[in-house]
Amino acid sequence: MSSKTSPLAPVLQPELPPISGARLAVAQTGIKYKRRDDLMLVVLEPPATIAATLTTSKTASAPIDICRHNLPGGKASAIIVNAGNANAFTGQRGLASAQAITAAVASATGQPQDQVFIASTGVIGEQLDPAPIISQISAMARKAAPDNWQKAAKAIMTTDTFEKQETITTTINRQKTTLNAIAKGSGMIAPDMATMLVFIFTDASLPQGIAQHLLTQAVNKSFNCITVDSDTSTSDTVLFCATGQQETDFASPDDPRLADFSKALDALCQNLAIQVVRDGEGAEKLITIDVTGARDNGAARIIAMSIANSPLVKTAIAGQDANWGRIVMAVGKAGQEANRDCLAITIGGIQVASNGEVAPGYREADLVPHMQGRDIKIAVDVGIADGSARVWTCDLTHRYIEINADYRS
Amino acid sequence: MSSKTSPLAPVLQPELPPISGARLAVAQTGIKYKRRDDLMLVVLEPPATIAATLTTSKTASAPIDICRHNLPGGKASAIIVNAGNANAFTGQRGLASAQAITAAVASATGQPQDQVFIASTGVIGEQLDPAPIISQISAMARKAAPDNWQKAAKAIMTTDTFEKQETITTTINRQKTTLNAIAKGSGMIAPDMATMLVFIFTDASLPQGIAQHLLTQAVNKSFNCITVDSDTSTSDTVLFCATGQQETDFASPDDPRLADFSKALDALCQNLAIQVVRDGEGAEKLITIDVTGARDNGAARIIAMSIANSPLVKTAIAGQDANWGRIVMAVGKAGQEANRDCLAITIGGIQVASNGEVAPGYREADLVPHMQGRDIKIAVDVGIADGSARVWTCDLTHRYIEINADYRS
Repeated sequence: MSSKTSPLAPVLQPELPPISGARLAVAQTGIKYKRRDDLMLVVLEPPATIAATLTTSKTASAPIDICRHNLPGGKASAIIVNAGNANAFTGQRGLASAQAITAAVASATGQPQDQVFIASTGVIGEQLDPAPIISQISAMARKAAPDNWQKAAKAIMTTDTFEKQETITTTINRQKTTLNAIAKGSGMIAPDMATMLVFIFTDASLPQGIAQHLLTQAVNKSFNCITVDSDTSTSDTVLFCATGQQETDFASPDDPRLADFSKALDALCQNLAIQVVRDGEGAEKLITIDVTGARDNGAARIIAMSIANSPLVKTAIAGQDANWGRIVMAVGKAGQEANRDCLAITIGGIQVASNGEVAPGYREADLVPHMQGRDIKIAVDVGIADGSARVWTCDLTHRYIEINADYRS
Repeated sequence: MSSKTSPLAPVLQPELPPISGARLAVAQTGIKYKRRDDLMLVVLEPPATIAATLTTSKTASAPIDICRHNLPGGKASAIIVNAGNANAFTGQRGLASAQAITAAVASATGQPQDQVFIASTGVIGEQLDPAPIISQISAMARKAAPDNWQKAAKAIMTTDTFEKQETITTTINRQKTTLNAIAKGSGMIAPDMATMLVFIFTDASLPQGIAQHLLTQAVNKSFNCITVDSDTSTSDTVLFCATGQQETDFASPDDPRLADFSKALDALCQNLAIQVVRDGEGAEKLITIDVTGARDNGAARIIAMSIANSPLVKTAIAGQDANWGRIVMAVGKAGQEANRDCLAITIGGIQVASNGEVAPGYREADLVPHMQGRDIKIAVDVGIADGSARVWTCDLTHRYIEINADYRS
């Protein structure tokens, strides 16, 4: 946990209401961090429907293996999360440690072990001693309470500088329902799953197939559209738990009775995704990149990510320099069709380039106030067809180097 | 030109001998840099055979358009290069400026304009005023001399902190021949053409098709295997000129009489490629990455580049931290087949991981001397098949941010 809060942190933190069936507890293990909570347990009683999106990394962590194994069962009775050690690249011993922890949770909650989900973040490649975790679990299961959301959001932090939480109220099938979510993540954020842990809870009743479909849709429009440093974690995890126990007759994810709920889930995920970028390691500016005019939406996303991941673009913005030539470079290197001589770029709504060269009348001085702000907006039209995409990133600053050059020391 | 020379710069600069048929001149235009040479002219008389590798960027510069247009002619009578303005994303006016410059060179040398090659590097998106360049050309053509290699290598620099030059003597068809090369490049270095300008000259006689084949081969093993920041320039150019005028009867690039020459060209390109990495913006350590055990050589290269481009790996090395967990992460995110539970990693020859976890007996203290050195060696075996690749990169330091956050100011 970094001592200085990101200058892009939200000014107000929302207060998350209870979700029926979900209770939370936190504890200190002392494994890496001293004098702070670093362990979170969520008890789901009765077991909730669960959907998940997990890292695409080929070197996934032991907790990911367990989540992947348990997911087809479709039910979650508990989630246990530790911060400071990722239990990744720890071989058979690492898997045994993770299993010992889920076994202890199963025993303390009286539920089957294959309904216990687990997530770990932190250093890769160090063995995780399960004992300091296991010794806390019985007490946590006993004291778990419906109102511990903020403590939970804090307990899962690593290099995060502020806790990430959001709540939204909507309707499903004309009944009022709540969505709560907490997240962590500030480094190793990249395409195809921001490197994060995200836990979403709703008291709605949802069949697993539909929950999975709605989650995948929401993740593709949020966590898969952000990048801090192009690095992808071994531990990316989004879990979505629906505690409602009513029978439902939703025929498909497109059922109109799900429309409001689906929109709320999208908004919740987008809000959290942007919070993660706002806490990007060393971030001083939030950058929103819109690409239009591409061959299709996929091509637009590749171009947008090429801009978002360019160290030269990100350092220029850190230096408050409207060096749009580097945006041109990033479009060029993306490998997607672009018409150089039709390319148009606006920054902060001001046209800087059109028809493949600097825009008539553009004066760099006009952009100074925008570049000095916290919220940088870049829009690029590549002049081919109608594909579009929006992604979010942050600038690349000295602080990123500081944080990452001595993370373990 | 940066004031402080890279700590990785070669201690000794080679002295390049004359190449028959090639004369060089430099001049000051004052366009961006004051009180230093920023313009280079090479006069090739009689015209040389030319081969080239040019950027794959979709937003290539005006000079690239001209080189691409002239290349099929197969002959070069002059090369003109300016530093400080890339003449990229400058539309029809930019093309007209570049053409005005090549026309002036053609007129001063009495050779056809379509034998004049041009390269520009520097800021993207600013119009290049050709007048200060054109006004120097007649004098340069007159004073061009066979021994100006070092001055030429200096004149083409932008953010480079030292000039890059190399010479090698070999045989072709049992006759002695010389290869000279100069290069510039320290930022925007990335896969598929390091972002650089490279000019290679030999007094050997070579048909164009064979020169192109040998060059492509050499580039794939050198400039396409280095990365500083994953960014690809709009101006990447490698030109290879053979001034020999003898008839040759080489039937194919595999002719055994070409073997020594081909090896020498490979070595020359690899030497220059590594020099470019050694001058990577802010570089304090040269990192050599070997990947073995991949599905094929292409997969190995993708994995190696994923490690080489990871900001988290590069900042860890800047911090002299053997955080090999980040190497595991970078292998995982490459999207190529890898067997997590067979993965093996050595750093500086010391086994840090094997069979998918930390190696028995590995102590981080053993690696301290290696991590404190200038020359970091990482080897990864991904445990699938026999594909292998070697790439070079540098660490990511505060100085990179400094250089790039205020490059234009």
